[in-house]
Amino acid sequence: MQLLKERIQKEGKNLGGGILKVDGFINHQVDPNLMDACGKEFAKIFRNIGATKILTAEISGIAPAVTTGIHLGLPIVYARKHKPITMPDQVFLTLTPSHTKGRTVELIVSPEYLSGGERVLIIDDFLASGATILGLVQLAQAAGAFIVGIGALIEKTFEGGRQALEFLGVPIEALARIKVMEGDQILFED
Amino acid sequence: MQLLKERIQKEGKNLGGGILKVDGFINHQVDPNLMDACGKEFAKIFRNIGATKILTAEISGIAPAVTTGIHLGLPIVYARKHKPITMPDQVFLTLTPSHTKGRTVELIVSPEYLSGGERVLIIDDFLASGATILGLVQLAQAAGAFIVGIGALIEKTFEGGRQALEFLGVPIEALARIKVMEGDQILFED
Repeated sequence: MQLLKERIQKEGKNLGGGILKVDGFINHQVDPNLMDACGKEFAKIFRNIGATKILTAEISGIAPAVTTGIHLGLPIVYARKHKPITMPDQVFLTLTPSHTKGRTVELIVSPEYLSGGERVLIIDDFLASGATILGLVQLAQAAGAFIVGIGALIEKTFEGGRQALEFLGVPIEALARIKVMEGDQILFED
Repeated sequence: MQLLKERIQKEGKNLGGGILKVDGFINHQVDPNLMDACGKEFAKIFRNIGATKILTAEISGIAPAVTTGIHLGLPIVYARKHKPITMPDQVFLTLTPSHTKGRTVELIVSPEYLSGGERVLIIDDFLASGATILGLVQLAQAAGAFIVGIGALIEKTFEGGRQALEFLGVPIEALARIKVMEGDQILFED
């Protein structure tokens, strides 16, 4: 998606160690109109997969998941990292390593909002190693739901996440696919 | 706002101790179309206050802030509760008590995205005691920004948050104002 790639070129910062800083429009400050355009694009890509629910992980997946949900007319569920007091005792929980936090985090979904037979579209900000998205896949599968598609705003193709998710046999789409980050240089796949 | 009030009546649950569970459409599962309608309503209410930025707190403020941002054409910033590695060492940080967590949490904003002179509209999911919103006010003021309006999806008028924020002299608007929660009964202000 040209609009997103241009924004990454203009404002993204390679902090080294595979970390791309996009805090100016995705991860701390959010450009809602860009997120809306991304949601519209995801809706176009995934409109025929028969999804019944969108699943994401707090925190940075929420904005693109919400805009995708608006354009597909689907509810979204964001997996929590801490169990709030409003959640029942019995939950779906998985552990996932966090690249940017350097430790393992919990991903928790209430069985109230993820049921057997649901067709789940996963939307997240990044597809890097695939660890977070794999955690979401495990939550959905624990609930007896089916994964029908995976969308990420930004993929770092050199971190192997796509390969780790291919076994699912579902469409995996990223709106900006980065193949190289070296110094100030950010190169996209064609 | 009628749509939101009806949804609260239908699906909201009084868990006691002043806790209203709205996990089915705001705090865990999100109804994006309802959030979009709320964003449109906030945009209508606040269109003439000259806001230059929307400020919210992760996690549950993000959805209504994003949809408000779409309809006002304004960037949003969500205060983080943990400092990510992409954030500079020097930040604006405040401590705020969390009602649903029973402890103090940090609210952190990078000076990269909140500057002196900005006119800030605060959007959040709940206005209860006002503690979180006061934390956001303090962050904005530390940055030299001005608060020009405060919007919440749901206000619990019996917790005094509005009174705690009135000193700011800015419009404070909630889309559903609850005056009583007793057992299964949820009553709104007129």
